[in-house]
Amino acid sequence: MNRAKITVEPNQLSFKVERTFNAPRDKVFLAMTEKDKLERWWVGPGYTTRVEHLDAREGGLWRFIQTGDGWEHGFHGYFHMVSPEMIIQTFEYDGLDERGHVTLQKIELMDIGDGKTKLISTSVFLSAEDRDGMIHSGMEEGLQYSYSKLDEILMQDTCQEE
Amino acid sequence: MNRAKITVEPNQLSFKVERTFNAPRDKVFLAMTEKDKLERWWVGPGYTTRVEHLDAREGGLWRFIQTGDGWEHGFHGYFHMVSPEMIIQTFEYDGLDERGHVTLQKIELMDIGDGKTKLISTSVFLSAEDRDGMIHSGMEEGLQYSYSKLDEILMQDTCQEE
Repeated sequence: MNRAKITVEPNQLSFKVERTFNAPRDKVFLAMTEKDKLERWWVGPGYTTRVEHLDAREGGLWRFIQTGDGWEHGFHGYFHMVSPEMIIQTFEYDGLDERGHVTLQKIELMDIGDGKTKLISTSVFLSAEDRDGMIHSGMEEGLQYSYSKLDEILMQDTCQEE
Repeated sequence: MNRAKITVEPNQLSFKVERTFNAPRDKVFLAMTEKDKLERWWVGPGYTTRVEHLDAREGGLWRFIQTGDGWEHGFHGYFHMVSPEMIIQTFEYDGLDERGHVTLQKIELMDIGDGKTKLISTSVFLSAEDRDGMIHSGMEEGLQYSYSKLDEILMQDTCQEE
């Protein structure tokens, strides 16, 4: 079973996530940039996601709303670069008391042969407090859950085509 | 004389710049978001700057071209947030062999009274190599030069109004 490897170095402003998917790069890229697919996997234990806006091109806005039992959390950002090899975007959680706690995310998708894709995601923060806030938000549990959902939809889509 | 204080901590992915300007915040903000003003101060010893694009709103593109004696360097990015208190944007140097070496910049403008403004700029990088590349690009010399030009145009604009 594929698990995400999360690397958090002390006293750094970043963290890195590595994960292998059993699907070709173009399929993983589509699952990350199409509204319908994103809503199926950007979910967690006890919440769903509504993609309010997804303009996956340079300068385009993305805005997702997570909805749980009696709560909603909004997130948004802008794409700096969008290609099947690399997505670079900003990320901000809308629920904080003040604005400005913005993250820069680089998502690399590498074709590693055998129809598999390795994802390497690097997130950098403007302060150590911002990074620790993200780490302690339940991010790892959410990430493992949503990536396993992504596995499912990649497999379903592959089976439908065969 | 106001000098920029540049803080570079070892083993970090960021650096910080602090600088005081003898002008009210709204004037400093305008000088940072208007094409004509930017072209007068975003210059260095031996080069000028042409603002090709400046759409100073969330999601808007900026693209500047530095021109020296026989060379040109392009830079571009997208605004994540634009207000007189805070500008957050991405930054990429277009002259590298590969794309993806992107910086996230937060520029805070604080009204510190007496018609003065304190600028605190935080830049975070996706890797230590990216940060060191920026530090060793002659950034500090260029920054001190361009901020002293900004002093001049802030003073000129203030005098014209009086």
